[in-house]
Amino acid sequence: MLATILHGPGDVRCEEVAEPKILEPTDAIIRLSASCICGSDLWPYRGANEVKDPMAMGHEYCGIVEEVGGAVRNVRPGQFVVGSFCLSDNTCPHCRFGFQSSCEQRQFMSGAQAPRARIPLADGTLVPTTDLPPDDLIPSLLATSDVLGTGWYAADAAGVTEGSTAIVVGDGAVGLLGVLAAKQMGASRIIAMSRHKSRQDLALEFGATDIVSERGDDGVKRIRELTKGVGAESVLECVGTQESMSQAINCARPGGKIGFVGVPHGVQFDGQTLFFQQKSLLGGPAPVRRFLPHLMDLVLNREINPGKVFDLELPLTDVAEGYRAMDERRAIKTLLRF
Amino acid sequence: MLATILHGPGDVRCEEVAEPKILEPTDAIIRLSASCICGSDLWPYRGANEVKDPMAMGHEYCGIVEEVGGAVRNVRPGQFVVGSFCLSDNTCPHCRFGFQSSCEQRQFMSGAQAPRARIPLADGTLVPTTDLPPDDLIPSLLATSDVLGTGWYAADAAGVTEGSTAIVVGDGAVGLLGVLAAKQMGASRIIAMSRHKSRQDLALEFGATDIVSERGDDGVKRIRELTKGVGAESVLECVGTQESMSQAINCARPGGKIGFVGVPHGVQFDGQTLFFQQKSLLGGPAPVRRFLPHLMDLVLNREINPGKVFDLELPLTDVAEGYRAMDERRAIKTLLRF
Repeated sequence: MLATILHGPGDVRCEEVAEPKILEPTDAIIRLSASCICGSDLWPYRGANEVKDPMAMGHEYCGIVEEVGGAVRNVRPGQFVVGSFCLSDNTCPHCRFGFQSSCEQRQFMSGAQAPRARIPLADGTLVPTTDLPPDDLIPSLLATSDVLGTGWYAADAAGVTEGSTAIVVGDGAVGLLGVLAAKQMGASRIIAMSRHKSRQDLALEFGATDIVSERGDDGVKRIRELTKGVGAESVLECVGTQESMSQAINCARPGGKIGFVGVPHGVQFDGQTLFFQQKSLLGGPAPVRRFLPHLMDLVLNREINPGKVFDLELPLTDVAEGYRAMDERRAIKTLLRF
Repeated sequence: MLATILHGPGDVRCEEVAEPKILEPTDAIIRLSASCICGSDLWPYRGANEVKDPMAMGHEYCGIVEEVGGAVRNVRPGQFVVGSFCLSDNTCPHCRFGFQSSCEQRQFMSGAQAPRARIPLADGTLVPTTDLPPDDLIPSLLATSDVLGTGWYAADAAGVTEGSTAIVVGDGAVGLLGVLAAKQMGASRIIAMSRHKSRQDLALEFGATDIVSERGDDGVKRIRELTKGVGAESVLECVGTQESMSQAINCARPGGKIGFVGVPHGVQFDGQTLFFQQKSLLGGPAPVRRFLPHLMDLVLNREINPGKVFDLELPLTDVAEGYRAMDERRAIKTLLRF
């Protein structure tokens, strides 16, 4: 079959690979209904992470179960499933504590930018729907696998509550869905930091009440003006650079919480500065599995439409263009069809 | 009057200074019932903080109001009061959010290792008792001013809840009172990390269920054994060094919370490491004022006895010996009488 392989910075190819097969009795094989490119795929694509060997790309997925290993009990062939980009057993102490992304057996999904994929730890990872969902919901269901789940975790880690003020740093797909999550959690004021018209529009559609187009110190100054000098109780950091992290910390009020989900690259914190700033930090790969059943329900009930972040749709054979478009910020997020 | 002045590393003197007087209409002058030396006083005493000019030492206090400025409404001469080491107006947005230690008008108390002291922002800072308390409760009431309030904040920031597991890193007075706080908040397991017999005994008296005398990697290994490989949901970091902070982070479970109250000296965090560890951090100078009425009630009702951390009592004229005893860890905490 064709699959997406990254050979080095800027060198992503759609090429022939072996079909996936069951390797462990806890595996499942699914036929993907769609796949997509993640903002985090751009780190190795841009050379920010080293690429030693060719990498099978793709970790967001949903589709129909084709085959299961002998130990799999919770899903069966023919079911439609969504799973998290973090594979987890959902039974270990960390999973039961709601941190499936730190599962004792954690693996990170790979190889999902392809028509078929092997899903390890299928019982813990996959969530089936009762019926096969209608086609028009596939993009939004796919979004629950990572990008929505990650934005949701950012809002959760930032402690967004009914009536609170939330600030979202980063207008990538995760940040935009962080806006959606904050809205669902009842934030009464949601300030999206974005300077791109199309992204600002989507932020507003997802529930942002204010847009701040300034960045860095100017952005912080504008946030201070908007919050009467106080800052926000919740800040979602959805980029992962030192600049965006500083911006996030400086936009939070003392005692406020920063949920950071942009994988940090070159980010350092000074302990004494953090101490006197008196702000709470929680980040990490999102425990999407914790939220997945709820998020899938919201999509299936048509209460949310996170699939709107896909503003480019390409056949798998054009995956390289999908990466380029996101790298150049011509596209927010690329959906891949087979 | 006599007061405690730090002239340089290791050079602390009891010497004659001018009596304090009202400088602002929001000030009060109190006659201290007792004072004490704080673990944080040892940072400049040890040369870890630069001492440019002679410093008036002491920020923990309780006593009788002698005089108030023209704008003071909440306390009056003759009342017994306790105040936080952080002076705050208790009306600004940060105070109302419970983070009085980030008050818009915040000042840090100084000059309280002396028989009388000026308290700025008296209305926001001081909490009076209904009656004059009995003498035997003075040490415990004094403890609420900082050392208990700080241990309490560590437990609060670490999210200690009914039935939880809490680990306390640091067996100074703050750490020991962190044990007491965790006990009051209902932790069912409290692991104190200490290798000093007298401190271990006090930790057990305050509610510790386990003592771990190992440190660093060995300490973390022992914690893993005690928690079935999981770690704790709440860790109180009460030291402030890189070693103690690493120990605290490594003892927490993924999704666990670290409340850090030891003023960090030379502590750095790597963003990506913190991300993948997936642990929550909140530190800072304790917003003691938030907790003060409750803590004073617990003392006045004789439900807690935090004054037990004072294992050395000296007249003010011997304050230098009080510093030496704490520096050499011969004393947990020194009470000063006038």
